[in-house]
Amino acid sequence: MVQAEKANRFITFDGIEGCGKTTQLRLAEAWLRARGLPVLATAEPGGAALGLKIREILLNRNSFRIGPEAELLLFSAARAQHVAETILPALQSGSWVLCDRFTDATVAYQGFGRGIDLQIIQTINAFSSQGLKPALTVLFDLPVETGLARARKRASNGHPEKAEDRFEQEDIHFHNLVRNGYLRLAKESPGRFRIVDAVGPPDEIEHEVRQILETFIFRKGESQ
Amino acid sequence: MVQAEKANRFITFDGIEGCGKTTQLRLAEAWLRARGLPVLATAEPGGAALGLKIREILLNRNSFRIGPEAELLLFSAARAQHVAETILPALQSGSWVLCDRFTDATVAYQGFGRGIDLQIIQTINAFSSQGLKPALTVLFDLPVETGLARARKRASNGHPEKAEDRFEQEDIHFHNLVRNGYLRLAKESPGRFRIVDAVGPPDEIEHEVRQILETFIFRKGESQ
Repeated sequence: MVQAEKANRFITFDGIEGCGKTTQLRLAEAWLRARGLPVLATAEPGGAALGLKIREILLNRNSFRIGPEAELLLFSAARAQHVAETILPALQSGSWVLCDRFTDATVAYQGFGRGIDLQIIQTINAFSSQGLKPALTVLFDLPVETGLARARKRASNGHPEKAEDRFEQEDIHFHNLVRNGYLRLAKESPGRFRIVDAVGPPDEIEHEVRQILETFIFRKGESQ
Repeated sequence: MVQAEKANRFITFDGIEGCGKTTQLRLAEAWLRARGLPVLATAEPGGAALGLKIREILLNRNSFRIGPEAELLLFSAARAQHVAETILPALQSGSWVLCDRFTDATVAYQGFGRGIDLQIIQTINAFSSQGLKPALTVLFDLPVETGLARARKRASNGHPEKAEDRFEQEDIHFHNLVRNGYLRLAKESPGRFRIVDAVGPPDEIEHEVRQILETFIFRKGESQ
């Protein structure tokens, strides 16, 4: 288990497909670095060699038959290695860690989306993450239709490696379950979550993210 | 959850490296088939396309860094798909299923061997197997040194695909923890386990396995 003061530097960006979290995470990483902070930016599933291998399996729509239980366990296996090999060492070295998706995504997608029992998901999440919890989670919220339209545009628009994946193929109903799951989580943990309206232009969203990070990082006497 | 009477046809063969279970399982499969029974023989990790992919990752010693938590979750992901895609449909069609390793292996290797909490393993096992439990488990027991010597001989002896894997590389101490774990499980569930002394010649062991199956299958009025 990581020491509490180090875990305070663990920040996650989360939300549905096409919410812009990945772009915003890169912008935030560059901005924090420019402010002189040590930062590791990383993403799930991935972040360790094993995770990238599992990511290939999970996101490739021409891949294997993967039922909901196997899907949950594969994401969890990737997370376990990501936490042990990448995130905890970075936190222990004093770095800030910005992570694109984490345990909340498992609750939202596999719990609220796929309907797997939330209790077993919490148990497996606690195991795969060695009890690590984000100190701050920025949730990028927007209507499912808007997010999916963006994700599809990206898929058809010169990002061959971003070709519409297993999740982007799910229907609107599934994505609404996921979105509502995220909002429920945010409501249950208002101290940890900040909800960002992800509909507007990227530079406005960037500004809002900076304000959130500014308050969280620099006004809590945590700066270095 | 599979119906009880169908789960009664689920039989596992288990034990440490080099115990001969795989050879004995093939012999038993052929024998039961010759007796006119519908039989599916299958193995963990594997049995479904996803499982074979995970098996590659898990058993290749030149693979990725895989910590104990990720290892447990990968085996469990493979099992979840194996159960959903292969084992349950076969049981539901009325077939007998002979499975080379199952949840007991996870308790023995990842629990007793790696030291992961047994409670969390039981929880994850119940989830990955959809609550399916073997009706009969044949445990092939022998001293670790004998088993490893056999496994190494096999690795060096014209079975390139069987090159010594991640688990065979572990030390004697680890394998003794695993063996003792299996024996503990057998002691806790004497109604389900049959322990076979796996030191002797294969044809004697085959004879003993046949007697066990004869009693279990044909003398319980379960034959068809």
